[in-house]
Amino acid sequence: MRQSQLFTRTKKDLPKDEVSASAQKLLQAGFIHKEMAGVYSYLPLGLRVLVKICQIIREEMNQIGGQEIELSALQDPEIWQKTKRWPDETVDIWFKTRLKNNTEVGLGFTHEEPITRLMTSYVQSYRDLPRLIYQIQTKFRNEARAKSGIMRCREFLMKDLYSFARTEAEHGEQYEKVKNAYTKIWQRVGIGDSTYLTFASGGVFAKYSHEFQTVSEAGEDRIYLDREKGIAINKEVLTDAVMNDLGVTKKNLVERRAIEVGNIFSLGTRFSESLGLVYTAEDGARQPVIMGSYGIGPGRLLGTIVELRHDQRGIIWPASVAPFAVHLISLCQEEADEKQAEKIYETLQQENIEVLYDDRPDVRAGEKFADSDLIGIPIRAVVSPKTLAKGMVEVKERNSDKVSMVSMSELVPWISNRLNPKP
Amino acid sequence: MRQSQLFTRTKKDLPKDEVSASAQKLLQAGFIHKEMAGVYSYLPLGLRVLVKICQIIREEMNQIGGQEIELSALQDPEIWQKTKRWPDETVDIWFKTRLKNNTEVGLGFTHEEPITRLMTSYVQSYRDLPRLIYQIQTKFRNEARAKSGIMRCREFLMKDLYSFARTEAEHGEQYEKVKNAYTKIWQRVGIGDSTYLTFASGGVFAKYSHEFQTVSEAGEDRIYLDREKGIAINKEVLTDAVMNDLGVTKKNLVERRAIEVGNIFSLGTRFSESLGLVYTAEDGARQPVIMGSYGIGPGRLLGTIVELRHDQRGIIWPASVAPFAVHLISLCQEEADEKQAEKIYETLQQENIEVLYDDRPDVRAGEKFADSDLIGIPIRAVVSPKTLAKGMVEVKERNSDKVSMVSMSELVPWISNRLNPKP
Repeated sequence: MRQSQLFTRTKKDLPKDEVSASAQKLLQAGFIHKEMAGVYSYLPLGLRVLVKICQIIREEMNQIGGQEIELSALQDPEIWQKTKRWPDETVDIWFKTRLKNNTEVGLGFTHEEPITRLMTSYVQSYRDLPRLIYQIQTKFRNEARAKSGIMRCREFLMKDLYSFARTEAEHGEQYEKVKNAYTKIWQRVGIGDSTYLTFASGGVFAKYSHEFQTVSEAGEDRIYLDREKGIAINKEVLTDAVMNDLGVTKKNLVERRAIEVGNIFSLGTRFSESLGLVYTAEDGARQPVIMGSYGIGPGRLLGTIVELRHDQRGIIWPASVAPFAVHLISLCQEEADEKQAEKIYETLQQENIEVLYDDRPDVRAGEKFADSDLIGIPIRAVVSPKTLAKGMVEVKERNSDKVSMVSMSELVPWISNRLNPKP
Repeated sequence: MRQSQLFTRTKKDLPKDEVSASAQKLLQAGFIHKEMAGVYSYLPLGLRVLVKICQIIREEMNQIGGQEIELSALQDPEIWQKTKRWPDETVDIWFKTRLKNNTEVGLGFTHEEPITRLMTSYVQSYRDLPRLIYQIQTKFRNEARAKSGIMRCREFLMKDLYSFARTEAEHGEQYEKVKNAYTKIWQRVGIGDSTYLTFASGGVFAKYSHEFQTVSEAGEDRIYLDREKGIAINKEVLTDAVMNDLGVTKKNLVERRAIEVGNIFSLGTRFSESLGLVYTAEDGARQPVIMGSYGIGPGRLLGTIVELRHDQRGIIWPASVAPFAVHLISLCQEEADEKQAEKIYETLQQENIEVLYDDRPDVRAGEKFADSDLIGIPIRAVVSPKTLAKGMVEVKERNSDKVSMVSMSELVPWISNRLNPKP
C-alpha cells in the first residue's frame, strides 16, 4: 500500500490520558483511535494486525477440531435468569438496554448461556459428543475503570471456545488439547518466552483453573513465577497448600506483574444442568454434558505484544502479525529515480510480499525514518539516489541496528530469508 | 469437513414463527440459530457463507481504494448531539445503555458521526483528500417489528463505506466508483440479474439517493421497474415529475416487491459542518469536506440470495458464496469401499476444493440426499458400492436434475469446469 494514500499518519504528541506504553505507541502510530475511555476503534494498520492475530488463533482452534460460529451480542434474559447470572447484583459488568416493548436485554460479556442453549438443539446422544465450538466476537463489559488502553476495554473482541464432553476423562483430553493450542499461539505471535501457565482459582468445579500470564510491568495481575519449572501461581491463590500441591517452594518463586492473555476453565455441569443440556449415554442413561470455556482477547494480545516489543522509537512487530512485512522508503526526488523505486514496489508485490511504500514526496528523510521506527514494520528498505547509483537498496531490520546494502536481485531472497528464517 | 463431526444437523420441522422462506430454509438447514425475534447467531455453515460474502465485498471495496477500519459499537453522545441525532424523538431505533458513572451511551445504528470526528484528526489539507474508508461491523437497531428473518434484524453486520471529497465533482466520481463496485458485487454473489439501480428520496443534499433493489416477493419495499432501461423508482418517490426527469413513462413500469440490498447517499456537508471536518484548499480557504455514505448488509444479502435461489427441497447456492464447493456423499458400508471414499475426500482436499464429506455411517441414502438438497452445495458427488464397481463417481449439480457418472481421474476436472466455467 502507498503511504501517500494511507489516511492515517503518525502523531508527534504523546496522548496525555494514556498510561500504558502500548496504547501510547498504538495511538501515536495511528493503529487505533480512542472513542471514549475504554472504547477504541481500529484503523487500517491496527486492523491488519488484529486480523492476523485472529487468523493465527483461528488456525490453531481449527487444528484441534474447533468449529467456528458467531453468536449474537444481544442476550435473552431468560437463559441468564436460569443460571442466576442476570441480576446486576450478581454480575456487575452487564450493559443492559431495552427493546421497544420495554423488555430488558443484555449485551453479552461472555457466552456460556447462549451456547449451552444452542447445543440443546444439536446434542442428543453420546454420538453427538465431544465437540469444540468457538467464535471470535465482540464482548461488552461495563468496567468501572478502564485505564490500561486496549488491554481492558468496555467493548472488545474475544475468542471464546467452549468444550462439550461426555466424561471427566474426555473433558480432560479436550482441556489439554486447548492448553497446547494456546501455547502454540503465544509462540506464533512472539510472546512465547514471556508467557507462563499460571495456576489460579478453579471455582466450584475444579481445584484450579489455568491462566496464561505474560510477564510485563504493564500487567494488572501479580504472579509468583518458578522460571526453572516454567510455571506460575496467581498471587490470589498463593498458599502453602498450593505450593506444596504444585511442588514448588517459596524461595524459588519470584513475584512479577503480568498480563492475563488467556484463561481456561472447567465448568463441570453448572451450565448444562441449569439449561438442560443432557445426552443419552451408551447405556441409555441421561447425563448432563461436561463443559469447559477458554478465552483469548485478540485486542489485549495485540497490546501485550506491543508492551513486550517496543523501544523508545516505537513498536517492533514480529513478522507473524506485522501490518506489513516490508517498509519500502523512497528518498528519490528525480523522476528517473522514482521510477526505479516504483519498480521495486511492484516487484515486491508480485512476490506477494506485503509492502508499505513510503512514496510521500514532501516528507524529509529523517521524518520518514522516525515514522518507520514508530510503526515498527520488521524490515526497512531504503531507495535513494545514493543507493541507486550503486544499483543497491539499503536494508535494515527493525530489531537490529545493522544497515546493509543489497543488490536489486538479492533483495527478495534477503527479505524472504528474514521473514521465514531457516531453523 | 466431515459431516459426522459437524455439530449442526438439518431439522425436519419447519420453524413455526418465521414467515420468510430464507429464514425457514436457513434455520432448517442449520445455517443460523434464532436467539430472539430479530436476533440470529451464525452456525458453521452460515458463517462460512457470510465470510465469503464479506470477502467479495471487501475485495471490491479495496479495488476502488477503500481502506478498512473497525469502529466501536459503543457511541459517545457528544458527537450525536452535535448533529442532532441523539434524541430518541429524532432517531427512534437507538439502543442506549449506561456506563457505571450513569453516562448514557448508544449502540451505533450507523457511523457517520464517529467517522467524521475520526477524520478531523487526519484531514487537514487538500492533499489529504479524497478518501474512501469502510468497515464491516455490527450495527444495532431497535426495530419495533422484526419479522423478515435475517433480512431485518435488531443486530446485524453492515458494510458501511464513507467517502470524503473536496468538490462536488470529486464526490460525483467517488459516487460512481462505488455504484460500479456495487454492481460487480451483485453479479459476483449471483443476484445481478434481479437487482436494479433504484431512484429513491435524496434527502436534503441531493435530488435522489440510489438504492439497489432485488426483485423478490419477500421484499418489504415496492418499486416501479422499467426492465428495458434497467432502472427502477421506489414507490415512495414515484411522481410525474420524477418519471419525466428519468425519462420513463408509467405504462412501461411494472410494480414489484423488492429487497433493498444496498444504498448510497450523498451527505453533502451536513456531518462535516456539524463536526468541524474542514480542509485547507489550494487557495488557502477553509472548506467543509463533502461526504457520501454507502451501505450493504451482508446478512441481508445472504438472505436475499436464498430468497432468489431455492426450491421446495432447499437452497441452491451459487459457487461464489457456497459453504462448500462439493458435497461428497458416501453410501459405502464395507471397509474397502469406505477407504476409497476417504481417498476421494483426500484427493479433493489436496486440490484445494472445499468439501463437505458426508461420512455418517448410520444415515440412510434418502436422508443424505435430502440433507444435501436442503443445504444446497453446488456439486454433489456420490460414492457407493455400485459406482465403485464401475470405478466411477456419480455427480450432479444442485441446480440441475442431470445425473452423470465420471471416472476417478475425470472427477477433479469435471468439478473445476463447473466451479470456474470458461466463458
